[in-house]
Amino acid sequence: MTNAQVTLIQIDNYGPWTVTPEPRREVDLQTLQSRLYADLSQLFGNREGYVFFTRFDNMVAVTNGLDADAHALIQESVGNRYPVTVSLSIAVDPAPAAALGTATSQLQDAGSAQDGERTEVLRGEPLPPERRTDDDVQIAHFDVNDATGKYTDQLNEFDSFINIEQGYAELMRYMRRAHDSLSFFVGGDNIIVVCDAVDETGYLDAIEHVREAVGVDLKVGVGTDRTAQAAGMAAKHALETCRDERTDVEFA
Amino acid sequence: MTNAQVTLIQIDNYGPWTVTPEPRREVDLQTLQSRLYADLSQLFGNREGYVFFTRFDNMVAVTNGLDADAHALIQESVGNRYPVTVSLSIAVDPAPAAALGTATSQLQDAGSAQDGERTEVLRGEPLPPERRTDDDVQIAHFDVNDATGKYTDQLNEFDSFINIEQGYAELMRYMRRAHDSLSFFVGGDNIIVVCDAVDETGYLDAIEHVREAVGVDLKVGVGTDRTAQAAGMAAKHALETCRDERTDVEFA
Amino acid sequence: MTNAQVTLIQIDNYGPWTVTPEPRREVDLQTLQSRLYADLSQLFGNREGYVFFTRFDNMVAVTNGLDADAHALIQESVGNRYPVTVSLSIAVDPAPAAALGTATSQLQDAGSAQDGERTEVLRGEPLPPERRTDDDVQIAHFDVNDATGKYTDQLNEFDSFINIEQGYAELMRYMRRAHDSLSFFVGGDNIIVVCDAVDETGYLDAIEHVREAVGVDLKVGVGTDRTAQAAGMAAKHALETCRDERTDVEFA
Amino acid sequence: MTNAQVTLIQIDNYGPWTVTPEPRREVDLQTLQSRLYADLSQLFGNREGYVFFTRFDNMVAVTNGLDADAHALIQESVGNRYPVTVSLSIAVDPAPAAALGTATSQLQDAGSAQDGERTEVLRGEPLPPERRTDDDVQIAHFDVNDATGKYTDQLNEFDSFINIEQGYAELMRYMRRAHDSLSFFVGGDNIIVVCDAVDETGYLDAIEHVREAVGVDLKVGVGTDRTAQAAGMAAKHALETCRDERTDVEFA
Repeated sequence: MTNAQVTLIQIDNYGPWTVTPEPRREVDLQTLQSRLYADLSQLFGNREGYVFFTRFDNMVAVTNGLDADAHALIQESVGNRYPVTVSLSIAVDPAPAAALGTATSQLQDAGSAQDGERTEVLRGEPLPPERRTDDDVQIAHFDVNDATGKYTDQLNEFDSFINIEQGYAELMRYMRRAHDSLSFFVGGDNIIVVCDAVDETGYLDAIEHVREAVGVDLKVGVGTDRTAQAAGMAAKHALETCRDERTDVEFA
Repeated sequence: MTNAQVTLIQIDNYGPWTVTPEPRREVDLQTLQSRLYADLSQLFGNREGYVFFTRFDNMVAVTNGLDADAHALIQESVGNRYPVTVSLSIAVDPAPAAALGTATSQLQDAGSAQDGERTEVLRGEPLPPERRTDDDVQIAHFDVNDATGKYTDQLNEFDSFINIEQGYAELMRYMRRAHDSLSFFVGGDNIIVVCDAVDETGYLDAIEHVREAVGVDLKVGVGTDRTAQAAGMAAKHALETCRDERTDVEFA
Repeated sequence: MTNAQVTLIQIDNYGPWTVTPEPRREVDLQTLQSRLYADLSQLFGNREGYVFFTRFDNMVAVTNGLDADAHALIQESVGNRYPVTVSLSIAVDPAPAAALGTATSQLQDAGSAQDGERTEVLRGEPLPPERRTDDDVQIAHFDVNDATGKYTDQLNEFDSFINIEQGYAELMRYMRRAHDSLSFFVGGDNIIVVCDAVDETGYLDAIEHVREAVGVDLKVGVGTDRTAQAAGMAAKHALETCRDERTDVEFA
Repeated sequence: MTNAQVTLIQIDNYGPWTVTPEPRREVDLQTLQSRLYADLSQLFGNREGYVFFTRFDNMVAVTNGLDADAHALIQESVGNRYPVTVSLSIAVDPAPAAALGTATSQLQDAGSAQDGERTEVLRGEPLPPERRTDDDVQIAHFDVNDATGKYTDQLNEFDSFINIEQGYAELMRYMRRAHDSLSFFVGGDNIIVVCDAVDETGYLDAIEHVREAVGVDLKVGVGTDRTAQAAGMAAKHALETCRDERTDVEFA
């Protein structure tokens, strides 16, 4: 059984900030958002966590192994370096989607995302060290079979993007519905899914579903470990095995 | 009539680099990608252009006003600061999708995205200064009506994300098919579309289509100018007018 | 005759901010300062200017070719992306030190560096385009002869640093006093000096002075042009000539 | 007794890289160097270490608490994100200058800083966990009395800088000679010194020496702890006490 610790990261009162007193230049907003994400990748990543950009104003992290102090320090570091602050809400559940649901509710209970008074909230309970196990995090790393040969080197880049995007949209909904799992596009033709102990049949069905629905061929490497970093790296190696052996699903 | 100058930005041989000699740590790849995007936002943005992250290994820029020298300098600056290099391909067309199609073909003709020898390509002809007009770029800035109230403050963050994502997926395909236009998610509930002189009816139809297809309510501000920056800022102000007047479509 | 346009960049009310409400973590301050400097390097550098980190809370830029609008946009971009704001003051003079003196006075007249109300000041007049010439900026790029062989590969790194630092300290005072010029350490064993039309004898005397005072052997390449970027690149090539020909002073 | 663990960070073969095949644009080099420093500040800082920029191509870190694996991960992360690599050499000694001397020698033994084959060296032994104590790191945080009132708000910025710089140059040499300690300018009017168990008299003498030699008035807060981060934060609080009580030396 997995036991995902998920952290919701929300920029405080961001929408209003972007248009006050006048709409701010889009290139500066894009720079701010992507650098904040890059910094959070390092801040969580240095502690074995993973962060996904999601909507950029709301990001999702897998944080097994990070206690409340580590979260507080990350929150403080953002506040020291950005014109915006972030709220953090932590929850734990065997099902990643359920953990994120709890994390979201905790933050919603503290006030609206656009409430100027609700800043730097830190809520929720990390998984106690004594309850952590080597199976807490399952990461599945999908990519598209021969994306370069079939899309990038052949199609208008926007049509390549639409294909990848459709594969992602289909997979994210399927994995959410069938397995309470959270899927994130991470660039190129790569999708990382934080899973609830899905087995080989589950992954084969997901691949089959995406192929039938939108005609995109995926393969997947799966890793399980105490932290997102360790599980994710195992998943990457398993995906290399898929590539070498021309298989669809490999477990590390 | 618009006349979009579009630049395709492709990281050279990126896929192989990410797994050579071993898969690289995901948090470092995420940091690299998002910082490269942030830097390109500034490098193009300082010259009135817009860049969209798209797939991160392939990015799309609207570059009216940037000549070949400006592109070469941006390419050199990336090479001076990153472990990867980028190829750039420029094309001009009244229809943004057609411009990107030409830009893509030029780069494909130079070699595969995964050809280790094909690096720092710079292809294509910018729009000559004497042919530039004040109507060259049309930018439409969409957002979701009351996204915070209906989604962010109510749903599991992943379900908010799925809703936004479905709205985006539907709009990107519709605008591509109906108007040869390029739609990009830019964070939060915002989508920026580079358009081919679409009129009010066109935008109303697009909004209606997305509402019917996936139940997501959009509104849009539209701006037209010589550069992406000027058109985009006008679009943002028009979107503020939508918000104040509770209208669906506003032209600057 | 040179005609340097110099901009003083001052972080507004920075000292108090660093200790309010409690002293902020030093690593975050270091990150903030060095990234702000990196961004300013790009923002001014994309417009052919040079920025020097100086004290980090006060930085000095050579900005020939940048008008008031360009300065305003840079100021806005910093405000959009950092928790602090900057004030800018521009002045022009044949002597770089005199230009910086005027720029400093203009800012001091607007209020104290630690006045919480004095934010985002923008003062001073750029050089009008019609008065600009190809001789406006003279840049001298010094380095230490065989610094790697004599220092880096031989001494305790701190003693290497002390030697380089002493050479710099001596040169900065000499060039300030003898030539109203501004010297900046830019890393490694490199010092860039913004000069007031100094001739070969002037540079030979400076090198001789530093050798006698602290025993550090320098050489220098000198470039002159309309902008800092062009003059600085010419100076670098001239310094390469010094290296190849084993000479002490070369003009581009 | 202190027991400083010091790490020398050296960019591999950096000098030749900056001029190959042609001299690279100075603004890109400045951006690269300052961002690398910012990233190292975070990478070491997230593990309670301090990094100082020193010459930028050679940086010095205080790394008590970081083992060899943490160093290897930082080295890998830099290699994944920059066009250059770094070598690291670790040493421990009661006297910080002696530790840096050993660290330097270890790296010099591995080859020249400009040897293209000597890359990503990792040498030296961290302090074993069982030998670590709460007195291992002493940090002294100096600043200049009323720097804003006496310098920044009064003088030409370059003359303010020369004054601060002279104070620093004098202190760095004095502390090196008298106390085997390492002094680093960290921006504004701040100098951080990694010390070898210096007592109150020692600090009073240092302040007196700098005042007599160059007329710059310093004060200092001192902290001692297991890590640089903890000792440095204690020193900052002690410096606030100096400010409040108008004293010259305060120990946390």
